Amino acid sequence: EEEIPEDHPRYQDLLTRHRIEAGVEKGITHLQGMHAEGRGSAFDYLLGEETIPSADDAERAAAAHLLLADHPVLSINGNVAALVPGEMVELAEATGADLEVNLFNRTPERIDAIVDHLREHGADEVKGLEADAHIPNLDHERSKVDADGIYEADVVLVPLEDGDRAEALDEMGKTEIVIDLNPLSRSPQVADVPIVDNIIRAVPNVTDHALELAGADEADLRTIVANFDRERALEDAEERIRSGEL
Amino acid sequence: EEEIPEDHPRYQDLLTRHRIEAGVEKGITHLQGMHAEGRGSAFDYLLGEETIPSADDAERAAAAHLLLADHPVLSINGNVAALVPGEMVELAEATGADLEVNLFNRTPERIDAIVDHLREHGADEVKGLEADAHIPNLDHERSKVDADGIYEADVVLVPLEDGDRAEALDEMGKTEIVIDLNPLSRSPQVADVPIVDNIIRAVPNVTDHALELAGADEADLRTIVANFDRERALEDAEERIRSGEL
Repeated sequence: EEEIPEDHPRYQDLLTRHRIEAGVEKGITHLQGMHAEGRGSAFDYLLGEETIPSADDAERAAAAHLLLADHPVLSINGNVAALVPGEMVELAEATGADLEVNLFNRTPERIDAIVDHLREHGADEVKGLEADAHIPNLDHERSKVDADGIYEADVVLVPLEDGDRAEALDEMGKTEIVIDLNPLSRSPQVADVPIVDNIIRAVPNVTDHALELAGADEADLRTIVANFDRERALEDAEERIRSGEL
Repeated sequence: EEEIPEDHPRYQDLLTRHRIEAGVEKGITHLQGMHAEGRGSAFDYLLGEETIPSADDAERAAAAHLLLADHPVLSINGNVAALVPGEMVELAEATGADLEVNLFNRTPERIDAIVDHLREHGADEVKGLEADAHIPNLDHERSKVDADGIYEADVVLVPLEDGDRAEALDEMGKTEIVIDLNPLSRSPQVADVPIVDNIIRAVPNVTDHALELAGADEADLRTIVANFDRERALEDAEERIRSGEL
């Protein structure tokens, strides 16, 4: 990672690929995660590999939701752990959120590897090991969550989430924040706050907004949340993908 | 592979992913190939996951070029071997072309694994083991080819090729046919015949055209080649990607 020069024109893409590849080699990331990342990278390329203004609005709204929440939880899968482990720990600290490991292809080995990886990046408590509750309307393995984690959370950040699980969490009535580079995939479509941005830009930016809003009145946070227009954010990202420089 | 129902709406995408994953597990495909495939899958999604008419024209022109060639060679890398091994063998037979293994991340183990894999899919002779010539203007490992294969070929099919190598082959004056789902990436940009299509649709379609054109006069083949408009094919694919159903 140290060998990629920061001024390389493909720096973000190279960094992302390198981290995902290292994640697969460490047993953190499923091989299919490499495919998903490649798919995302094409959308990022079409977006111009930058945080567009409507994504920044979404990231600010996400920060406000997390700060207003009674019990916010940040969900970590294999790609999230590989790409932004330290950044997720910092966001959890900035918002008082819990971290919970939640895998699409769940094995005890991968759960343990991810928990260890997050601890190496400064995490203290990590949930997801108990798996003593179930999200309704999902098949057994995919539905496992911690009773005192995602199950009872009021606000969840689920980056790079599978569409079925994003829908099932939405049906539980949770305020759902999704990070996904394809604005028309199901997860951002069901999210209260769809962030169409690369996770390696999005998570630090949500943290920056949270730190800036840390002293804000509840009324101001509620205004930010109320003013965010999810439909516009999705349309704006789609428009950008269609018309941006290829 | 037998478990994926052919009428599944995501059949092609699932089949592609499955084959690439199996390729990685067999030591045929580099981990970065999984990323490249994911990236391609996003462009295929935007194209509508179908062979657009200008791609079919390109595939017909490719067949005509291969039939007219004195020494056509089909280049095989780790993704090509994983995705269309039998289909490349059939195309070689239909056009009298040689098969040559040519890897971006070259190791003796991967070369051997790919040669074995092609033989399991019906290949007789496979080039790429000698590596006794070099493509000019490429770094040493990436430039290795067989003297009686790609080095002396007049027409080369290089599917899913790296941009540097596609440029270097172009500079050698070869007639170059590229298959790539991003019309603006460098390889299709330098190709005489850029095929913007999924390789799993493109290769069998080039073979079908070659079988149909097998008895054609040289003059007819030359007309097909002359009438193919590479700029229009690239523009048409870009237009389709920008305006297609997301």
